[in-house]
Parts: sequence; structure tokens; C-alpha cells
Amino acid sequence: MATDIEIARAAKMKPITEIGARLGIPDESLEPYGRFKAKIAMDWINQQADKEDGKLILVTAINPTPAGEGKTTTSVGLNDGLNRIGKNSIVCLREPSLGPCFGVKGGAAGGGYAQVVPMEDINLHFTGDFHAITSAHNLLSAMIDNHIYWGNALEIDTRRITWRRVLDMNDRALRQIVNSLGGVSNGYPRETGFDITVASEIMAILCLATSIEDLEESIGNIIIGYRRDKTAVRARDINAHGAMTVLLKSAIQPNLVQTLENNPAFIHGGPFANIAHGCNSVTATKTALKLADYVVTEAGFGADLGAEKFFDIKCRKADLKPSAAVIVATVRALKMNGGVAKADLGKEDVEAVKKGVVNLLRHIENVKQFGVPAVVAINNFITDTEAEVQAIKEAVAAVGSEAFVCTHWANGSAGTEELAKRVVEIAESGQSQFAPLYPSDMPLFEKINTIATRIYRADEAIADSSVRNQLHQWEKDGFGHLPICMAKTQYSFTTDPTKLGAPSHHTVPVREVRLAAGAGFIVAICGDIMTMPGLPKVPSAEHIRLENGQIEGLF
Amino acid sequence: MATDIEIARAAKMKPITEIGARLGIPDESLEPYGRFKAKIAMDWINQQADKEDGKLILVTAINPTPAGEGKTTTSVGLNDGLNRIGKNSIVCLREPSLGPCFGVKGGAAGGGYAQVVPMEDINLHFTGDFHAITSAHNLLSAMIDNHIYWGNALEIDTRRITWRRVLDMNDRALRQIVNSLGGVSNGYPRETGFDITVASEIMAILCLATSIEDLEESIGNIIIGYRRDKTAVRARDINAHGAMTVLLKSAIQPNLVQTLENNPAFIHGGPFANIAHGCNSVTATKTALKLADYVVTEAGFGADLGAEKFFDIKCRKADLKPSAAVIVATVRALKMNGGVAKADLGKEDVEAVKKGVVNLLRHIENVKQFGVPAVVAINNFITDTEAEVQAIKEAVAAVGSEAFVCTHWANGSAGTEELAKRVVEIAESGQSQFAPLYPSDMPLFEKINTIATRIYRADEAIADSSVRNQLHQWEKDGFGHLPICMAKTQYSFTTDPTKLGAPSHHTVPVREVRLAAGAGFIVAICGDIMTMPGLPKVPSAEHIRLENGQIEGLF
Repeated sequence: MATDIEIARAAKMKPITEIGARLGIPDESLEPYGRFKAKIAMDWINQQADKEDGKLILVTAINPTPAGEGKTTTSVGLNDGLNRIGKNSIVCLREPSLGPCFGVKGGAAGGGYAQVVPMEDINLHFTGDFHAITSAHNLLSAMIDNHIYWGNALEIDTRRITWRRVLDMNDRALRQIVNSLGGVSNGYPRETGFDITVASEIMAILCLATSIEDLEESIGNIIIGYRRDKTAVRARDINAHGAMTVLLKSAIQPNLVQTLENNPAFIHGGPFANIAHGCNSVTATKTALKLADYVVTEAGFGADLGAEKFFDIKCRKADLKPSAAVIVATVRALKMNGGVAKADLGKEDVEAVKKGVVNLLRHIENVKQFGVPAVVAINNFITDTEAEVQAIKEAVAAVGSEAFVCTHWANGSAGTEELAKRVVEIAESGQSQFAPLYPSDMPLFEKINTIATRIYRADEAIADSSVRNQLHQWEKDGFGHLPICMAKTQYSFTTDPTKLGAPSHHTVPVREVRLAAGAGFIVAICGDIMTMPGLPKVPSAEHIRLENGQIEGLF
Repeated sequence: MATDIEIARAAKMKPITEIGARLGIPDESLEPYGRFKAKIAMDWINQQADKEDGKLILVTAINPTPAGEGKTTTSVGLNDGLNRIGKNSIVCLREPSLGPCFGVKGGAAGGGYAQVVPMEDINLHFTGDFHAITSAHNLLSAMIDNHIYWGNALEIDTRRITWRRVLDMNDRALRQIVNSLGGVSNGYPRETGFDITVASEIMAILCLATSIEDLEESIGNIIIGYRRDKTAVRARDINAHGAMTVLLKSAIQPNLVQTLENNPAFIHGGPFANIAHGCNSVTATKTALKLADYVVTEAGFGADLGAEKFFDIKCRKADLKPSAAVIVATVRALKMNGGVAKADLGKEDVEAVKKGVVNLLRHIENVKQFGVPAVVAINNFITDTEAEVQAIKEAVAAVGSEAFVCTHWANGSAGTEELAKRVVEIAESGQSQFAPLYPSDMPLFEKINTIATRIYRADEAIADSSVRNQLHQWEKDGFGHLPICMAKTQYSFTTDPTKLGAPSHHTVPVREVRLAAGAGFIVAICGDIMTMPGLPKVPSAEHIRLENGQIEGLF
């Protein structure tokens, strides 16, 4: 079979205006970026407000393993499948980050015959959204140090500035720096550092914003640091929110591209899935719901992190009502959950599948706790055997759900037809009774404990009194209604990445809590969370080059 | 009269495909960015190689003063004037930097009825070129620290790394930092810092590149630092040049926009005019020459810096033959050169004009030294009096040149018709006998001295033996053929910004020399050169915001 990049290059893309026309978007409301990418005009989007919403389908997954699950690929495949069976469907995905492209991972635009195109553009600068976020973030940073330089009228405690800088780059050397060295004209030296752009609170804000006004309001709310008396200083106090919003004027507009089968795809926003909520933008999802009967969207990592945040943060904020969820699993990943090493995945091992499938079953149960019916997509690999697949199907059936073998990677939409039909049945039955896991007025630590016990199946969440006191203080300060954004390892239900399967009776220690007053959530950090990745010994960048006008080595 | 922004907003822009069609660019070779900006496909550009070149007109100026000269405005006005009199003409300008937009200065897209549009886009992210340069630059930075982190096989001396990082932001706090703090996993702490993106060597390289292959070659040549034995380490040794070129794949393509009068404008590249050569890209200029009878282009700062570098660096590298030069002056600026304070510029002062005009006359003489005929554009202000204008015209006539009052700011192309006609006469007469000031094989310090004595009219250039030894070493290392890029104050012919008029018999002290092995020039630094600006006490960013979908406060 051809490689991903060969398939992508052989794609017969249609002009983006044609894809837009299918969605009813007039030419003049489509702002082209090249011939195969476009942003949709906000004015036009706002005019669609009275239209009825389509049905929202979440694609989530088991806990990720080195074997790979294929959540994006399956989202694209399901979208093509829905269109194949006559439904007007749009897939909403996250934008890939530029930084990791030059590290170990290749592109993030699906795979095989289930890809979004133009793949190279999507993986590089795309429509400049992440660059705009980097600029807006760093403008605030510059204005903070500038404010201090010119007299610090706001009396910011330079030791308590929480706002760092960002670059869309894997650069460990910038994690921790001392800035403003070199004398009087460069300001007051202080410790700070850089995160990768996807970890910027601006990214989370942009992805949760429901309008440009909401975006500006949320940016103004950002807490950039504290005074000596510990009162908060906000971006609004620095007068930065207006200019930052101007920088994000185009970035908030959803990006339209297409799948290999010429079906519409919105690729917009890409916040971290640990210290942020890990979903594509609310503007993209809500716009898609106005334009299509079906909208397929994905959440970050496994369902314990991704789906929970999708439901409790994104759906809560944007008032979304998902109709069904698809949980992606692979025979290989379940075998790893069942104790098989990566090197041995090529051999049939039905017992390992039966042992590892508990991870999948737990995610099914969890999604149902939100009132959302769930089915399973078994993302097919050539090495999968009939007996292994059967073991998954039986286990899934035993908990009242269904699993479908999906061969979209090899066959495109033909490989997801069965899944698509079942998703439509479920969605049209109206059986989804979505509700968030916890009410907004629950005390903050109780929210954390609810996620830990009901989703992670821990006995309890624990935290030092300093963490609990901080949460109490925030409740007093008026932040008690915010949802929780859990930052823990994606590899396990527990905080120990080596504990695969479906562990119970562990504890979830909350090491630190952070207030994202702009984005509107409280981050509970459980374990080491890296917000600026490094490059590996031989970065993939060393092999990336142009050859005869084509990009080699990127994927 | 309406403000710049009101005029720009009232512009009746034509679809960029229509502007492209006028130049013979087929739709499929025009990559739109929105409806009014486009990049031109490199494939198509390469196919135009056999076409005859149009005539190249340089717009330069007297030494800048706080009164303002209007070089960009005059370039746009002249282009409109040439089109008005029936010539097919394109104006080639530099892209504005994002950083200064949030500091003190407004936009940089012309003014009055001589503007390029869409003005807001051009001043903000435009087509993402500067963001691409920032990414490419910082990828190299990350790969250098990463190389050291993983064992430093190249034995780079971490004290001798000359490659810094860049952001398109005015941020003095980043001028000097210590990175890699925080322990083992963050690398080896060392001193470094950030420059603004326009000061990146990548910017200079991109603007001097004659093809994508030349771009990659030049990037590979960049010296990132030295070993303990002082041998150079290049970007090629880090294996970064391929991926950096991929990041710049679109950035090298010229950007097409239009003037208020719907005439074509290329806005592409914007290197610093002190530590770099300060001209728009070679690809834009050369492409424009293939597509039009006339190409109007501008150089940075006054003619002593800008025109000299345009001739000696850009024209030499790209084998360009300018047909004429227009030197922009204003009555106000010449009065300042004649000793009048800014507050008193509103009053007629013919004597001050007569005194200050020496600055202009010196620039006329200088341009003629390159074999290029020069005329003067007096960029008209309402306060200019007939007698003041007459004083300039007479002084200019006395040195064998001509001055034309240009009212493009108020009247658009009607205000430059006379200038345009004269420019055409000169260009078509074929009288230009362009040659660079010095031959490539002249010793490096002699090149510096030639510029200092013949252009700045100093008695000599002086330098410590360390500087002279460094130049000798570079000659031995094979860099003796490179041109010189002078970095000195733009406000005076001397290195003292307060010495206006036409001072002579000064000395030019060269404090430091830097090798830009990628860009292909040697920077001679004479005085304090700032490569990362700061923000003022009240940055303009504080007043920038969206109001009813329109950007307020940016201009």
C-alpha cells in the first residue's frame, strides 16, 4: 500500500469554494488561503444563528499506548462514512502544533485513506492561527515587563508573575530563563520561561470563545500575576486585551479544508489536553452544527481525560448536546493493556485482548455516565485476527454496547459504513440524555474528587492543605463555579503511567492547582506535566527538506 | 481631509485575481490569502525567466528627521503616476514589522491617497512571512541547544554561540537572558538573547535569495558560533537548513496587493536597514521586472545607508541595473536640517531651507557616484510655501538635477504625473551607467573606508587592531569578496545623530564587525545599534481594539 504522504499527494482536491458551496457558504464569505484552505467570515457565521443544529458525535478513545489508536483517522473515516450513506456531515479536528513536527512525531492529519488535505499545509503554518496566538500571548508578556520598566504603577510583584512567554517550538532551553539582564535599559531581571504555544491560555480561550466579544472579555480576565498583597493583576489592567483581540481577529474564524473524499473538514484550534481541555474550537463546532446534519469531533487523549473535558468544559461552556460517542480502540492497544510488549504485537494473543479489553469497557461505562450512548470503533490493523476481534466484540456486547471493525485506513469511507449507519440510528433515536458529570455549584475540591472517583475509579483525591486552602480562596474570590481541568498522565486511569488496564482503589494526589481565569477553568495538576517539550537526539527536522519542490521527511 | 484609515477603508479594492490578470498571472498561479492578497507561485515565476526586464526606479530619501519624509508614500504615488501616464508599473515595498505597530509608530503602508491596501492586513499578520521567518530562525536556535544537550558532538563552545532567537515583538526584557536554567533536563545554562524578527539573518537571506535553492544554500552557510579553536560551526553542520527552508517555502513567494488606485504592489520582506540591507526581496523585485515596464522600489532610511546598500548589496547580488533614482525630501525636513525645531516647522523659513538643502544636494551627488541619474520629489505638505519650494528647486537645479513638487498624499496619481513623466524620460534615455561603489575584490577595510570617505564624506574610517585583524582573518577564510553592510545612525552622514546638514571631515569609528556568512555581507557597526526595540511608556497597543468589527487605534 502507498504511504500516507503518497496517498495525500495523489488526492484529487476540489477547490475550497466548491466544498464551501456544498455547505451553503457563499464565495464572498469564504476567505481563501491558497486554493484548498479557507476561513469562514464571522459575519456570515453570526447570520446562521437561527438555523437548527445538526447532531454532534464525539470520537474518543481508550488510553493511548505506543501501539497507536487512530482517533483522528477514525474521525475522518466516520465523517466520510456518514457522507457516503447520504448524510451531510462535517468533521471538526484540532490543528496540529508546528513544534512537534520537528521532533519525533510526524503529521497529524489522519492516515491512509482517511486523511485531511492539504496535509503539508495543515502540518506547517496552515492559516497562521498558532502564529497569531503566539503573537497575542507574547504581546501581553512584553507589555507586562514594559509596565514594570516604566514604574510599575500596578505594583505587580515581579516574583509572582505567572504569565510566561510562548513559542510554537520544542525548545527545552527556554523552559526556565532569567530575563532583563544587561543593565538598566533592559528592565528588572526575574525568573520566567517559555511554554509551547498549544499550552498558552490564549489557545484555550480562543478554543472556548463563543464570539469575538467573548474572546476579548476572556482575554481581559486573564490573571497575569499578583501584587505583594496577593491581589490579582489582569490582562485588562495592563490594557492589553484590545490589541490581543485584534491580533486574533482572523484566528477565531474556523478553517475549512477537505478529506481525501472531498468531504468538509473544519480544523481549528488545538489546546493541550492536559493543562487545557484538548478540543477543537467552539466556533468551529458550533458553526459546523449550523451547516450540517452531522458533526464528528474528537477530544484529546483517552476518554478519561479527553471526553471528560469535552463534556464538562467544552459542552458546558458552549451549551453543546452530543448525541453519541464513538470510542476508538485497536486490537494492538488492547493487547498492550493486556500485558503484551510492543515487539510482540504481531502475534495473535486472544487472552491478552480479553485481559486488556477492561480498559475499553471502563471508558464505555464512563461515557454512559454523561448520558451519552457509546459504540466502539475497532480501527483495523492488518495483523488483527478474527478471534481477537471477536473477543472485543463479545466483551463490548456484554456491557450493552457494540463494536464495529473499521477499515477506513485501507478503504476510506467503505470501511466505516456500518459504524456510520449505527451512529445515525443512535443519534436519530434521541436516546442521548447528556448532562455534565458535576454541577457548576459543587465545591471545587468535590469536583476534583468526583472526577477522580467516578471517572478514574480512585478511592479518593488527596491534596495538601495548601492546595485545599487555595481552592477555598478561589471560591471566596468568585471562581467556585468554574469546571476542573485535570492534568494527569494520559496513559492510565491512575496517575501512574505504567498502570494499564482498568485499575481501581488508587488515590489521585493533586500536587498543585492553577487558575485559568481567562479560559474559565481550574487546572488540577497530578504528576509531572511538561508544557515545553524538548527535541530528541536526532530530531526529525534533520531529515526534512525540499526536493523538487516537494517536502520530504515531514511525515 | 479624511484620515489615512478612513481613506483606506473607503478604497474600492479589486479582487486580487483581477490585479494579477493585468500582470498576466493566471489564476492558478496566484495563491490567494483572502480576496485582496495573494502569493505568486514560484513555478510560474521561474517560467518568466526569458522575458525582458522592465526599468528599475529606486526611491530613496534625505536623512530622516522627526518631520517625516514619506518615502513609502512617494513610492506608491510614483507608481500610480506611472500607471496614470500609461506605463505598466509595479511598486515593490518592504513588509512592515508587527512589533513596532504596538509601540509608537502606526502602520507602514503609505498615507493619504497614496497607500497600499488592505492596510490593516498588511500591518498585522499579512501572509505570514515574518512568522515563518521567526519559526525558521528559532528552529535553528532550538536545534543548537538540543545538539549541545545530547552530547555536543560538534564541540560548539557554548560561550561562542552567536545565533540568538527572534520574536516579531518589541520586548526589551528579552534582549539579554540566561537560558537552560532549572537543572539537568533543561540543558546547559548560557547567556543569549532575542532580537526582533526583522533583524534576523534569515530575513536578510530570504530578501537576497534568488531562488529556493539559493535560499537553502545560504541558510546552510549561516555561522551559528565557534568551537574553542575558533573554527566556525554552520547551520549545515546542525542539519537544520533543510527544515528551515521547508518553513520558508511560501515566505519566499512575493506578495501581491494593490494601491488605492488599483495598481499592482509587491510587498515582500523587510530586513533591518542598519545591521541588514533594508530592501524588499530580490524575488519580488526581479519578478516585478519581468511583469512590468517599470518597477518602483524603495530602500531604507536615507540614501547614505539605504541607497548605498541597495546598490552595493542588493543590486550586486541580484545583478540589477537601476535606471534612475528619486530622492524624496520635504520642506519641513530640510528646514530641520537647516536648524529649525520641530515645533516651529509651521512658519515659513526660506533661509533655513537654503541652509538645510545641503543634505539633499549631498545625496544627489552620492547617487550619481553610482552612475544613476537622480531627480528629487518634494513631498508636499500644506504648510509649504512657494518661496521655500523655489529655494529647493533652485539649489537642485544648480547641481544639474531637478525637483518636482508631488501632491500624491492629497491628490493620488495626479500629484506625481510630472515626476513620472520625467522619470520615464530619464529611464528611456538609457543614460544610467550603474556600477557599485567598490569592486568585490577590494580588501574589506578599504571597502569600509571607501563608503566612509565617498558617501559619508569622512576623512577616514578608523578601527582598533582587533577589528582590522578580524577583517584580515575573514579575508584569509574566503570572505574577502563580501560587500559591507554599514550599521550607523540614519540621522546623519556622520556617526553622531545630532550632526544634520552635510558635515565633512569627521571620522567613522568602526566599533565591531560581524560576519553574516549566510546573507553574504559583513556588518560594520559604528555606534549603538539596537536589534530589539522596547515599548514606550504608553504603548499604542493600549489603544488598539476592535469596535464593530473594525480595528481602531492601529494607525
